[in-house]
Amino acid sequence: MTDTAEAAKSSTATAVEEEPKAKAAEAPSTEDKKDTGAEDKKKKEEAEEGGGKKEEESAKEEMRAVVLHGFGGLKSVKIVKRPQPALADGEVLIRVQLCGVNFQDLMVRQGVTEAPPKTPFVLGFECAGVVEAIADDVEDFKVGSRVVAIADHRAWAELVPVPSKFVYAVPDNMPLQEAAAITLSYAVAYILVHELAAIAPGQTILLHSAGGAVGQAVCALCRHAGNVTVIGVASKCKHDDIRSSVTHLIERGQDVPSEVRKLCPEGVDVVLDCQGGEECNRGYSILKPFGRYVLFGSSNIVTGETKSFFSVAKSWWQVDKVSPLRLHDDNKSIMGFNFRRFLHHQGGEEHVKRVLESVYELWKEGVAKPNIDSTFALEDVTEAMAKMHERRNVGKLLLDLSMEAKPKPTTPAKTKKEDKKETKEEAKDEKKENEKKDNDKKENEKKENEKKEEAAKEDTKEAKAAEEK
Amino acid sequence: MTDTAEAAKSSTATAVEEEPKAKAAEAPSTEDKKDTGAEDKKKKEEAEEGGGKKEEESAKEEMRAVVLHGFGGLKSVKIVKRPQPALADGEVLIRVQLCGVNFQDLMVRQGVTEAPPKTPFVLGFECAGVVEAIADDVEDFKVGSRVVAIADHRAWAELVPVPSKFVYAVPDNMPLQEAAAITLSYAVAYILVHELAAIAPGQTILLHSAGGAVGQAVCALCRHAGNVTVIGVASKCKHDDIRSSVTHLIERGQDVPSEVRKLCPEGVDVVLDCQGGEECNRGYSILKPFGRYVLFGSSNIVTGETKSFFSVAKSWWQVDKVSPLRLHDDNKSIMGFNFRRFLHHQGGEEHVKRVLESVYELWKEGVAKPNIDSTFALEDVTEAMAKMHERRNVGKLLLDLSMEAKPKPTTPAKTKKEDKKETKEEAKDEKKENEKKDNDKKENEKKENEKKEEAAKEDTKEAKAAEEK
Repeated sequence: MTDTAEAAKSSTATAVEEEPKAKAAEAPSTEDKKDTGAEDKKKKEEAEEGGGKKEEESAKEEMRAVVLHGFGGLKSVKIVKRPQPALADGEVLIRVQLCGVNFQDLMVRQGVTEAPPKTPFVLGFECAGVVEAIADDVEDFKVGSRVVAIADHRAWAELVPVPSKFVYAVPDNMPLQEAAAITLSYAVAYILVHELAAIAPGQTILLHSAGGAVGQAVCALCRHAGNVTVIGVASKCKHDDIRSSVTHLIERGQDVPSEVRKLCPEGVDVVLDCQGGEECNRGYSILKPFGRYVLFGSSNIVTGETKSFFSVAKSWWQVDKVSPLRLHDDNKSIMGFNFRRFLHHQGGEEHVKRVLESVYELWKEGVAKPNIDSTFALEDVTEAMAKMHERRNVGKLLLDLSMEAKPKPTTPAKTKKEDKKETKEEAKDEKKENEKKDNDKKENEKKENEKKEEAAKEDTKEAKAAEEK
Repeated sequence: MTDTAEAAKSSTATAVEEEPKAKAAEAPSTEDKKDTGAEDKKKKEEAEEGGGKKEEESAKEEMRAVVLHGFGGLKSVKIVKRPQPALADGEVLIRVQLCGVNFQDLMVRQGVTEAPPKTPFVLGFECAGVVEAIADDVEDFKVGSRVVAIADHRAWAELVPVPSKFVYAVPDNMPLQEAAAITLSYAVAYILVHELAAIAPGQTILLHSAGGAVGQAVCALCRHAGNVTVIGVASKCKHDDIRSSVTHLIERGQDVPSEVRKLCPEGVDVVLDCQGGEECNRGYSILKPFGRYVLFGSSNIVTGETKSFFSVAKSWWQVDKVSPLRLHDDNKSIMGFNFRRFLHHQGGEEHVKRVLESVYELWKEGVAKPNIDSTFALEDVTEAMAKMHERRNVGKLLLDLSMEAKPKPTTPAKTKKEDKKETKEEAKDEKKENEKKDNDKKENEKKENEKKEEAAKEDTKEAKAAEEK
């Protein structure tokens, strides 16, 4: 089933559901049995997600949240009622008005990110709203202040507690919607353009996923840098919308290096790649001397709606390892950038705070502009995810918690004509993918089988462990 | 034989020699036979080195030059009389007063650089002097102007023709000796510190070969950047001299990562490595998130006085290849920088010109300071090379063409005591190296044999080719 079809089905099915009380109440005790000192905090969080502490539960009001009930397709994503979360030390409780949808959310849903929380848990990395409460030890914020947060999962709910180090005050005069649209995209884009690639006037960059929110932010920053040639790669359907933001456009799926060589035979100074897979090797090959290839994502892992062992494995084995000695000979650099990991697991909070100060300055100057593709009701989250999956969004996808779960002018309902067109394109895409798969199948069959076997072993292990309990 | 002993012997043997007329005269014709269209220019240059065009030769005056007669030890380096070179289009003829000695010169002598000229040829990459003549199509310079040049080999002679794009005007008031000392070292250091590593206040860098000319230039630029912690690695004998230029010192040969972890458990922001080999893997391991490892040389290739298949092979197979996906996960970067290749073979001339404008500005501000270890007469070049080989220089080694080939106050003669000390240290070093070799031998024997076989094949090929002529 394609994501669109699934989204339509899910969408009708996701009228807010009451989470079964029994399950919600049981969850924490199950978690408690497994507790092992070091994981206490995590378990606590998971226990809360499972239904909150028993004693507090009855007293608490409920809220809506987007919960992932198991890794997989859109069907695993449900809007459910949850007890309102408790506030821990160092945290800010945010009454959420807007949420950002990112490609990472699709990866989390499929279970292809590193060490995701155990299901069920609240999805999402970005939310914006108003401070509802503050832990006693937090001094930076006031109740009622407008903030944006980049959370480590669990951001798509009406009330979200986030450690204050990941919460950012929205500048006066900046509409909350703009803050929600620019904060994460421009933080990533700023680090890419000004810190890693260090793009200078006169340079040429190759930008994959040019039509996404980060891609469009990169374009804006390059335009501001002045005299930067941007070669954007994007799905054909986005070309009309993004043509003015780039210097040249290449269609996604084409032979990118050949197309780049036609445009600039001497190669490019920078490649910004969030795809991974074969693009890594191709990207390196078209770098000029002194060029920098920056890998900041691996969206190639996501192919179908659910996790594909084939595509996950392929995204790894396709990428050539490179000797530092070759980089020395070629005068080239390879740079890795994993924003979420940096911010949440490698102590990047101060760094990101500094970056956001610059980003908000650029907003004041009119450089950083929100580029919102569309806004969805919380209940329509699967529709937003499907749109991103199919690479149909130009700029940011937002969830607006004040919106009702029905088609609105800002979230135009699909006409039958559009639907048909999409279905055709999907059919084409699917056909293409199948052809590709067939070609690769033979050589990759062995590796895939190995992966499957490993996964099967894992499953058996898990099943055994569950039985033992 | 150690380099020092060899240097002493060579030194006495290198009283200017007259190059055998027969050989000099024959060389061009031999070269002519082999000419194949595309290589015309190179062959012409080689022919000139072989003795110059026959018809011009008698009319020309002679000059001194440091000529490499075959790849190998110090014995292959001779001071010979050569016909003065002709000036080609786009070139500037420089009457040389000073030459810079670089580690690359040792590598060229051993024949471990990529595509060196055919022997015999004039050694050296750096010279400074006064413009003697200018080709008709060169507009940037005037006869009599003081210049520095970074040549593609062939810089160690009394008269050196260099394409004008590799020649730099010495700023007024800058003594020629200072220009000779800072130009190349600071160009490399500037690109390392300000462009590749992009060192910022508050950061920590690990700097290999901290006592060399480039290393000392890096220290000066970091000091100027302010609040940069420099952990320098250098031979023990240099520690007293360079202690004030770095924050911490580690002895060369120690377990660098462990020592670094003792000083800063969280790792470093930047590693600047001109050694290669195992240091590559070690360097990567001690990087903080967002850290950059910059490989800008592979001096580990040079062990003994002559080329060692073992060390060349080892410098390659020791280096782990890295997947860009790992860099993405780790939030790290690996950057390669090969200055000479960039400047001479990858069109980096405008880039380097811009860099040198900044360097000369920094000289005016008192930031870029010449750090001259010692100055040698042209005839004492092997002594300079030996000093560099044994890592005894702190800062720049220069050849001064006006100096006479005998011990001078600026080139203090070695006392017997010093000599003894050095011999002891060398013996220790040799012992250490032998032990290391023994340990590695078994696992590496196979690879070495393969390399040797390849080399033997190459030799056989060359011998056959020679026979066929």
